[in-house]
Amino acid sequence: MPVKYQLIKRDKETRARVGMLETPHGRIETPVFMPVGTQATVKTITPEELKDLRAEIILSNTYHLYLRPGHDLVREAGGLHRFMNWDRPILTDSGGFQVFSLNGLRKISDEGVEFRSHIDGSSHFFSPEKVMEIEMALGSDIAMAFDECVPYPCTYEEGVKGVERTTAWARRCKAAHHHSKQALFGIVQGSTFRDLRERSAREITELGFPGYAVGGLSVGEPKPLMYEVLDYTVPLLPQDKPRYLMGVGSPDCLVEGVARGIDMFDCVLPTRIARNGTVFVPEGKLVIRNAEYARDFSPLDADCGCYACRNYSRAYIRHLIKANEVLGIRLTTIHNLHFLVSLMKRIRAAINENRFQEFRREFYARFKL
Amino acid sequence: MPVKYQLIKRDKETRARVGMLETPHGRIETPVFMPVGTQATVKTITPEELKDLRAEIILSNTYHLYLRPGHDLVREAGGLHRFMNWDRPILTDSGGFQVFSLNGLRKISDEGVEFRSHIDGSSHFFSPEKVMEIEMALGSDIAMAFDECVPYPCTYEEGVKGVERTTAWARRCKAAHHHSKQALFGIVQGSTFRDLRERSAREITELGFPGYAVGGLSVGEPKPLMYEVLDYTVPLLPQDKPRYLMGVGSPDCLVEGVARGIDMFDCVLPTRIARNGTVFVPEGKLVIRNAEYARDFSPLDADCGCYACRNYSRAYIRHLIKANEVLGIRLTTIHNLHFLVSLMKRIRAAINENRFQEFRREFYARFKL
Repeated sequence: MPVKYQLIKRDKETRARVGMLETPHGRIETPVFMPVGTQATVKTITPEELKDLRAEIILSNTYHLYLRPGHDLVREAGGLHRFMNWDRPILTDSGGFQVFSLNGLRKISDEGVEFRSHIDGSSHFFSPEKVMEIEMALGSDIAMAFDECVPYPCTYEEGVKGVERTTAWARRCKAAHHHSKQALFGIVQGSTFRDLRERSAREITELGFPGYAVGGLSVGEPKPLMYEVLDYTVPLLPQDKPRYLMGVGSPDCLVEGVARGIDMFDCVLPTRIARNGTVFVPEGKLVIRNAEYARDFSPLDADCGCYACRNYSRAYIRHLIKANEVLGIRLTTIHNLHFLVSLMKRIRAAINENRFQEFRREFYARFKL
Repeated sequence: MPVKYQLIKRDKETRARVGMLETPHGRIETPVFMPVGTQATVKTITPEELKDLRAEIILSNTYHLYLRPGHDLVREAGGLHRFMNWDRPILTDSGGFQVFSLNGLRKISDEGVEFRSHIDGSSHFFSPEKVMEIEMALGSDIAMAFDECVPYPCTYEEGVKGVERTTAWARRCKAAHHHSKQALFGIVQGSTFRDLRERSAREITELGFPGYAVGGLSVGEPKPLMYEVLDYTVPLLPQDKPRYLMGVGSPDCLVEGVARGIDMFDCVLPTRIARNGTVFVPEGKLVIRNAEYARDFSPLDADCGCYACRNYSRAYIRHLIKANEVLGIRLTTIHNLHFLVSLMKRIRAAINENRFQEFRREFYARFKL
């Protein structure tokens, strides 16, 4: 098995847990947040900066790398790790979410998805087999199965169809996947319908994967509804395998996901809002462009030990962002990723020390939704 | 004296020389290339990255910092060094070149220059006294006098007027400048007229400054003409003071400037072409966007020891640039600055070892104009 999960500690009051995930490129402590490196780079920063802020694993996007520079080129370069100079674990998504988001530019059938490139409009076809070929060429440590991610809201019938396709495609992915140094994770769909989540969880876990994702959440539904789905879906996944909640990355959602038994998260939120000049602080978010910070010579967050907070003031970072200087978005990106990575570290410590609920209360004492 | 120059070694065949410049923020070996940090940041990179590529001194722009974030704010931050987290020497230009370049947006009189901001169109006035106030607020190690930089070509009469204003303004700058930790350098003008350069050099050196710049070059004139002006202007400057050729930064011009007795250079060229995807190589320039590098897994320059060349392939950097990823222009920026800084280091070694002419020949054996 290329990937092995070891459950280390379970919280007594919630489903929160600490584990160790072994991969071909090293061990990861879970729960973990994975920064997103869409185009074989976590936008604006280097692998060294990722290590400096203690990122342990990153996610990269199959859809984007397939279109540019092409998976053949990445394979020729010696795989994604070598191409981008990142020697720690990488998880690749299946491209499903991206191609389903190409409204008007894609056609879904049981065979797969025909879509047009957002770059040049050229026509392409993703089948479960094709996606496996691409992910194997990329050589990530963890590949995700090709699934159908239905939008929110959807009809019950659309939900059923999504579950059925996801199971059929998961079976085809498993059959097509053969890579001694890559694990294939299954994805549970079912929208916000409890019986569909139960059916999907049963069908996907019956196929048997070394890890499972909860897909189709954080696609527009209210947070309480997402938490409800997690409440009844996560217990259906095996205790001895890692569970990954796809596309979730706001601080409160990380805390709530962990409380519901999730081990892995990814999201473009921290890096995207950083490039827009918004940073995480314990109280929520801070829009550094605002005039009130023009002469504020304190760091973004006085409690933070990241490179940006150790060396620069809000006034300077605001100046850089206002002047469209790249260093500005580098600093906010580093800060936001450090914020989430460090949040996960504190969560792990709290679980290990039997005080996760206390940590959760303290978190909300400062954090404003 | 805040700045002290010590002549260490003179080449026997050319005017090339090695020196040591002592400033309030440390010593610099000359000849030296100064990366440009227009808006209190060398575009795309950090102070640590500048140190890693061995930059010893940077230049920042008075015009830009005056407009945004404002010199008062920088003073409040504790000066430019502290604001931008750079603890090595900084030279600030006078803003003269920038405001004279605002064609149609500025009005020159003997009193100074009225101009409109390129950011919001607001009206401003630079006099020699105002520029001194701004540069003192910024707190750079070396401030440049406010001069009139005439365009190329210009009439003899315009050249005369420029020399006269430059001398009158240099006198006013000197009277207005009072800063115990900042040196004020004078600037010689005179366009491409030998007698005007001689007159300007005489008038400016008579005023007496701890360093002198040759201004008004690299403004569109052919390179041989620039070299000719240096041939007759540099010998008019005192041997015991540093000489700075403003706005020059192509590799061949650095070699030729040094051969003519220049000690300091600055230019946006290396950083600007980097952001356009062009990198320096010993043979000249390489346009990394070109299709021929798509599957080229060798470094930008096999002889280079910079961070980009140590860790990434041409194929990867090309991918980043094509995909508009910031990391791409960070890597090309680091490479280009490292190229020039390392060129200057090799030039200093060659002068010290009495083989500058040999070095110059070897340089042109590979370099294609």
